[in-house]
Amino acid sequence: MQRAILAFSLFSASALASPFSPQTIEIAEQLQLQAMASDAAYQIVADLTTEIGPRLPGTVNDARAVAWAKARFEQMGFDKVYLEPVEVPHWERGGIAAKVTSPFPQPLLITALGNSVSTPPDGITAEIVRFANLAELEAAAAKSLDGKLAFIDHKMERSRDGRGYGPVVTARSKGASIAASKGAVGLMLRSVGTDSHRFAHTGVMRYAAGIAQVPAVTLSAPDADQLTRMLQRDPHVEVTLNVKNQAFPPKTSYNVIGEISGSSKADEIVLIGAHLDSWDEGTGALDDGAGVGIVVAAAKQIIDANLTPERTIRVVLFAAEEIGLVGAKAYRDAHQAELSNHYIAAEADFGAGPIYKIHSRVGEHALADFDAMAKQLESLGVKRGNNNSWGGPDMSVLPPLGVPVAGLALDGTDYFDYHHTPDDTLDKVPPAAIQQSSAVYTVFTWLMANSESNFRPIPIPTK
Amino acid sequence: MQRAILAFSLFSASALASPFSPQTIEIAEQLQLQAMASDAAYQIVADLTTEIGPRLPGTVNDARAVAWAKARFEQMGFDKVYLEPVEVPHWERGGIAAKVTSPFPQPLLITALGNSVSTPPDGITAEIVRFANLAELEAAAAKSLDGKLAFIDHKMERSRDGRGYGPVVTARSKGASIAASKGAVGLMLRSVGTDSHRFAHTGVMRYAAGIAQVPAVTLSAPDADQLTRMLQRDPHVEVTLNVKNQAFPPKTSYNVIGEISGSSKADEIVLIGAHLDSWDEGTGALDDGAGVGIVVAAAKQIIDANLTPERTIRVVLFAAEEIGLVGAKAYRDAHQAELSNHYIAAEADFGAGPIYKIHSRVGEHALADFDAMAKQLESLGVKRGNNNSWGGPDMSVLPPLGVPVAGLALDGTDYFDYHHTPDDTLDKVPPAAIQQSSAVYTVFTWLMANSESNFRPIPIPTK
Repeated sequence: MQRAILAFSLFSASALASPFSPQTIEIAEQLQLQAMASDAAYQIVADLTTEIGPRLPGTVNDARAVAWAKARFEQMGFDKVYLEPVEVPHWERGGIAAKVTSPFPQPLLITALGNSVSTPPDGITAEIVRFANLAELEAAAAKSLDGKLAFIDHKMERSRDGRGYGPVVTARSKGASIAASKGAVGLMLRSVGTDSHRFAHTGVMRYAAGIAQVPAVTLSAPDADQLTRMLQRDPHVEVTLNVKNQAFPPKTSYNVIGEISGSSKADEIVLIGAHLDSWDEGTGALDDGAGVGIVVAAAKQIIDANLTPERTIRVVLFAAEEIGLVGAKAYRDAHQAELSNHYIAAEADFGAGPIYKIHSRVGEHALADFDAMAKQLESLGVKRGNNNSWGGPDMSVLPPLGVPVAGLALDGTDYFDYHHTPDDTLDKVPPAAIQQSSAVYTVFTWLMANSESNFRPIPIPTK
Repeated sequence: MQRAILAFSLFSASALASPFSPQTIEIAEQLQLQAMASDAAYQIVADLTTEIGPRLPGTVNDARAVAWAKARFEQMGFDKVYLEPVEVPHWERGGIAAKVTSPFPQPLLITALGNSVSTPPDGITAEIVRFANLAELEAAAAKSLDGKLAFIDHKMERSRDGRGYGPVVTARSKGASIAASKGAVGLMLRSVGTDSHRFAHTGVMRYAAGIAQVPAVTLSAPDADQLTRMLQRDPHVEVTLNVKNQAFPPKTSYNVIGEISGSSKADEIVLIGAHLDSWDEGTGALDDGAGVGIVVAAAKQIIDANLTPERTIRVVLFAAEEIGLVGAKAYRDAHQAELSNHYIAAEADFGAGPIYKIHSRVGEHALADFDAMAKQLESLGVKRGNNNSWGGPDMSVLPPLGVPVAGLALDGTDYFDYHHTPDDTLDKVPPAAIQQSSAVYTVFTWLMANSESNFRPIPIPTK
């Protein structure tokens, strides 16, 4: 069955004007078989999440993760392994508690958003005011929230491509300052997530300049529903909130980099990446242990097959993605002179997969070549997508500077059930899915490292 | 469709030598239609879990729950509403924290078992020793756990009838003392549950006399798996455990009782019940808000239809089931003189349903009569079960004293995903399932209150 499919895809690819030599395609197909028989990606996630666990930027475990990744890269046999320093913000969660004090006293399950300030030591006790979404809060009159807690109860929609995230996440990043600008003493946000479990989803937030910094927390979906039911019974619901967080001076973390040196085009770089950091309450299995497993195992298949690509394959595990693409920006700045040599870039940061589509951002003239590449992934169940990709969160800093990117779309139907919660643990990584995802990256990486196309210039995106 | 099924069941029932008059059956079928069009059971759970929330025996919320239930009963129009005092143990959870300190430092997600003592203020730091189950721990040599933490990692099997609970729950109730008898300084137990989420399941434990009382905690399934993976990499895994609980003097709580007075056989009692208390981390929606909704709504259908049963229908919401059937034992003792007048008893305490089978414990001579009753429930999807029922946890104190019981088996396939966790909240109650379960109780209660059978003497069970 597998053989028959491969024979078919070989035929299809050669029927097009292929940017790949027959030998490149033959090797890609051998690599595909090898990767689909390998559990390397899953094992990497298992090792990272077990031996390191949570790895919030700036923490002891972040430094342990960097050392772990460097040692792993060295053991794997990359031609070059090195670290690049990244100055990262350092914030840590302390204790947290919340309860309804009136009219229906009971505890609430919440968590603090990353960067949130603390409450005073004895907490804040205030009435809550519910808003169906951020727009409703924005429409509230000045001073209308004086002394109140703003409660935003916007439900996220489930989807395979994560399109439900955008409409709700701004409330997480900006909601606290908008609430404070109306007089609120804090923000309680329904978790940005798709589950109905008693997990509050964390994530980064920012304070706007010149506005009082008030604590920002999220409620689990059942707790948000509970508050809404209480408000239906009594418009005056009072909550006590106690948050103890701490901001520390910035620390030095590192982007961890491994390279398989190219032959004839060694100065051209095929960049694949994921981020090494994670939120602190889970073990960062889906976000982004899975991405680490997918791209590192892809490189491992090529190393283990003792192959030399024409271009250099560079794997980057970025620092501090979660708190603002900090490692990605440091990479962009450190490699500015070299960016024009970046042939293509792609990041895995949306769970374990499987990969169902491949998007791109390449020049219009090169679309047929990219289509030919996508064709080669059909036997793995991957369809061709659009040409509007940003390449993934960390890679998104590169297209504005002209770097072509690919978007290997991971199936994220369940991703936001676990995203940024304590429940993001290894048991949520389906071994078959991550195996397929890593096989797709393996084939993609090999083809890109040996392609005869030129993807530049690309359509420069504007946000 | 519904009409056709009813006509058929009417025919079937009358073909048997029925213990029910045609009028009794006609009313039962009207009640069934009424109950299947009612959301009363769901609304009762919604109100109880929203307006009261967690209700651990002896706490302020336990007292609030009693007042809530009494007011609800009075508002519903029971003929009699009364409270019976129950002296209940009072234990409360304080802060808890655990982490692996070596070789893979990271936090663990745990909870304390009910009744567990605290650690010293600075916690306990010790190596863990894993046991696949309680039998392995029991087989450990004396003193072999000196200064260690015993870790029991027994996985519970999922099933519709909850048969997986028995083989693992003894480790929860007795594991700490068995571990301490081998020198252990504490017990860490894989949660008795069937989910793979980051929830530790609590539940009651007991200390054996004459053995050191050591703290007893459970790990979420992902955390238990994590410890096992660590031990596969390094046999020396050290954990720090910090538990702060508090035992208080006993308090007076109450069984809450509502009655629909019977007519010709008013001194005979059809007893249906559930327990009002819950564990403290969830809102006790499935355990046992659902049972409360099922039996209270069943009585409500009969009251709302303005019907008078021949026998008295008594609804009891028991106190303090979770910590040892305390309310049930108090009921048994307070009603000793009247137990011979208990016609039949049944408790709903296994989630929201649906009910798929009806078991019994009645005299052999009366099995045909009970079968006829079961036949009447067929149109609701209920099959006849065995004659070995205990009637439910609280009712289990009655068959040893000769009281006939019925076991209306609720589908518990998912029950132990949520049981005794923070995640036992209203969103886990499927409205259609609880509607069917309450309809079954409605029909059952009406038929029992007007049956011409005599179920005594019963086969007395021996545990």
